[in-house]
Amino acid sequence: MLTRKKGRAALFLTLILLAALALSACAAKPETAEQAAPQSASDPLPSWNEGSTKDRILKFVADVTDAAGASYVPPADRIAVFDNDGTLWTEKPVPVQAAFAVARVAQMAPDHPEWQTTQPYQAILEKDLEMLQSLGLEGVEELVLGTHAGMTEEEFESIAGSFLATARHPRFDVLYTETVYQPMLELLAFLRANGFRTFIVSGGGVEFMRVFSEEVYGIPRENVIGSSLQYEFQTTPDGGVLIRQPELVSFDNEAMKPASIQLHIGRRPIVAVGNSDGDLEMLQYARAGQRPFLALLLHHDDAEREYDYLTGAEEVMAAAAQSQWLVVSMQRDFATLFPYEAGD
Amino acid sequence: MLTRKKGRAALFLTLILLAALALSACAAKPETAEQAAPQSASDPLPSWNEGSTKDRILKFVADVTDAAGASYVPPADRIAVFDNDGTLWTEKPVPVQAAFAVARVAQMAPDHPEWQTTQPYQAILEKDLEMLQSLGLEGVEELVLGTHAGMTEEEFESIAGSFLATARHPRFDVLYTETVYQPMLELLAFLRANGFRTFIVSGGGVEFMRVFSEEVYGIPRENVIGSSLQYEFQTTPDGGVLIRQPELVSFDNEAMKPASIQLHIGRRPIVAVGNSDGDLEMLQYARAGQRPFLALLLHHDDAEREYDYLTGAEEVMAAAAQSQWLVVSMQRDFATLFPYEAGD
Repeated sequence: MLTRKKGRAALFLTLILLAALALSACAAKPETAEQAAPQSASDPLPSWNEGSTKDRILKFVADVTDAAGASYVPPADRIAVFDNDGTLWTEKPVPVQAAFAVARVAQMAPDHPEWQTTQPYQAILEKDLEMLQSLGLEGVEELVLGTHAGMTEEEFESIAGSFLATARHPRFDVLYTETVYQPMLELLAFLRANGFRTFIVSGGGVEFMRVFSEEVYGIPRENVIGSSLQYEFQTTPDGGVLIRQPELVSFDNEAMKPASIQLHIGRRPIVAVGNSDGDLEMLQYARAGQRPFLALLLHHDDAEREYDYLTGAEEVMAAAAQSQWLVVSMQRDFATLFPYEAGD
Repeated sequence: MLTRKKGRAALFLTLILLAALALSACAAKPETAEQAAPQSASDPLPSWNEGSTKDRILKFVADVTDAAGASYVPPADRIAVFDNDGTLWTEKPVPVQAAFAVARVAQMAPDHPEWQTTQPYQAILEKDLEMLQSLGLEGVEELVLGTHAGMTEEEFESIAGSFLATARHPRFDVLYTETVYQPMLELLAFLRANGFRTFIVSGGGVEFMRVFSEEVYGIPRENVIGSSLQYEFQTTPDGGVLIRQPELVSFDNEAMKPASIQLHIGRRPIVAVGNSDGDLEMLQYARAGQRPFLALLLHHDDAEREYDYLTGAEEVMAAAAQSQWLVVSMQRDFATLFPYEAGD
C-alpha cells in the first residue's frame, strides 16, 4: 500500500515537473473577472453560496462555540488544519513550488556550468521533456534539493519572495498569491473569530509558504507546517546562521501529516480541510479524536472558472463517501473564487 | 568540538541517571517556606528583586514596545524562547524526566521479565550504580526509548500525567510542577502581556512537557518544542492513531535548538532564556538577528534555597561574559523562588 502510493507519488511529481517546464514560458490571457458575490455585514462567509455546505459549516462552528451545548469545545482545543496546494490556492497546472524550482534552474544556471551536462538540470535547460520524464522521483528530489539548499534561511526567503512578487499564473495572469480562494480566506477568518487557531499542514516547503502565509492567509509563520530540509548551524562573528542542506528531513504528506500535527501542535484538529489523497491520513487522524469534528474536502469540478480534476483524490473521495466528510463543490459552493474578483 | 561536547553529554546523561536512581527512593524534609515577596499591582515582576537585572528586563520590553522608539519591534516579531530544565523549573538533583524514566522501569518491570537480565533495566532494578555507569549514553538512550515508546500519544500523556500528579521532589517534598520558578512565570506573563509569543525550546521530551505546559506556564502545546520520537500512523476502525516508536528523531539540544526554532517558529527570537551549554547555540542564533535582543542566563548560585552549580554551563557563561548577555543570579535577583512560597 505504502509502496504503491509512493510509486504513484513519484509519477505525479514527475508529471508535475514536466508540466511546470512546458508552462514555464507561456502565459495565457487573463480571464474576465467574475461578478463579485454580494457582501453582507452579517454573513461571515459571503463568498460561499447558500446551501447545505455553508449551513453545515455555520452550524458546526455555532455548536462547538455554544458553551451550554453538548458539542461545546473549549478554545484550547479549537484547532483547524488546512492543506495548502489545491485547498487554499490553485495547484494547477502545476504546484507553485514546482514552477519556482524550474525558474530557479534557469536563474542559477550561469553559476552552474556543470548543469549543462548534469541531469535533471540539463533536461530542464534544454526543455527535454522525454529525458525529464525518464528521471523519475530521484530527478525531482535532486531538482528540489539542488535549487532550494546551500544558502541561509534568509537568502532562501528573499529568493522565494522575489519569485512570488513577480511570477504570474499562466492562465489567470495574476501573481500566484492572487490565486488563493476567497471562500477559504473567509473560512480561515471566520474560524479565528470563533477562537480557533488555524494551521497549514502541507507537502509544500515550510519556508516557501511562510513567505506569504501571514500576509495572505493571516496564518503566522509558526503555524505553518510543511516539508523541510536539514539545517546546519554555523557560528558567525555576530552569532550564527542556519544553512539549508540538500537533504530532505520530512516530506509532509500522507502518513507524515498526522505525525507532523502531533510534533508541531500536539492536539487532534477538530477542523481539517484538504483536497487530495495526501490529506487522507490527516483526516483519519482528526476523525478519531474525542471531539466533534468537521472534515472538508474541496472538489475541483469547475473547469470554467478554475480546473476540473479528480486524479490524485480518488481514495480520499471514497473515504469521504463512507464518512461524514463534507465534499465542497467549487462549482456549486464557491460564489467567488479569487480575491481580485471580490472587488476588494 | 562536536565530539567533545557529545562525549560530555553522554557523561552528563549517565551521571544524571545514576543520581535519579540513587534518589528514587528517598525524600528529604520540606524546606521552610520563604517570606513571600511583596506584591504590587504596578510591578509586573514582583518576585524579582530590584536592581540592574530587573531594570534591564523592564527597559528592554519598554523599548521594543514603544512604537515611536528606535528599538521598536512589531508584535509579529516578538518571539521569546525559554529552555525548560534549570530555566523554568528545578533540574536538580536530576531532570524530572530522568526520575520519570526510572520510575517507569519499576512500574513496567512486571510486564517485562526479560528486564531482569537486560541492561540497563537490570542495573536499575537492582540499583547497581556501578553497572549503570558503565553503560554510558547507549544505556540512557535505551532506557528512554524503552520506557517512552510502544504506545499511543494519548497513553503516554496519561502515564506522564499520573507521574507528575503524584511524584514529589526529593528535597522540597512538593510536586515537581511546583518547583517552577515564580520569577520566570512572571516574566512569561509579562512578555505575553506585551505582545510576545512565548515558546519552550528544550532537550526534554515534547510530550512530557506538554502535559503541564499550558496549566503551569501558560504556554500552549503548539508552542512547546522538544526532543521527539518517531511516530507511526496506524489506521483504526474509527480513524487512526500515532504509535510512539523507539527511535529518537530529534535530541533538541545544542545546535539542534536553532534548527528546531527555524522548523517550528520560523523567526529568530528577540528574547532567549537558558541556563546551560545546551542553550549556547540558541543564544548565538538569536543574537545574530536584525532586531534588538535580550539574552538571559540563569545562574544557579543559591545552595540555601535551591542549588549552586556551574557544571555544564561553563561555555555559555564564558560567552555571556564576552557579549551583552544578562546573567541572572538566583541568589541576588530572585526574591521568591517557587509559587507555593509566594502565598498564592
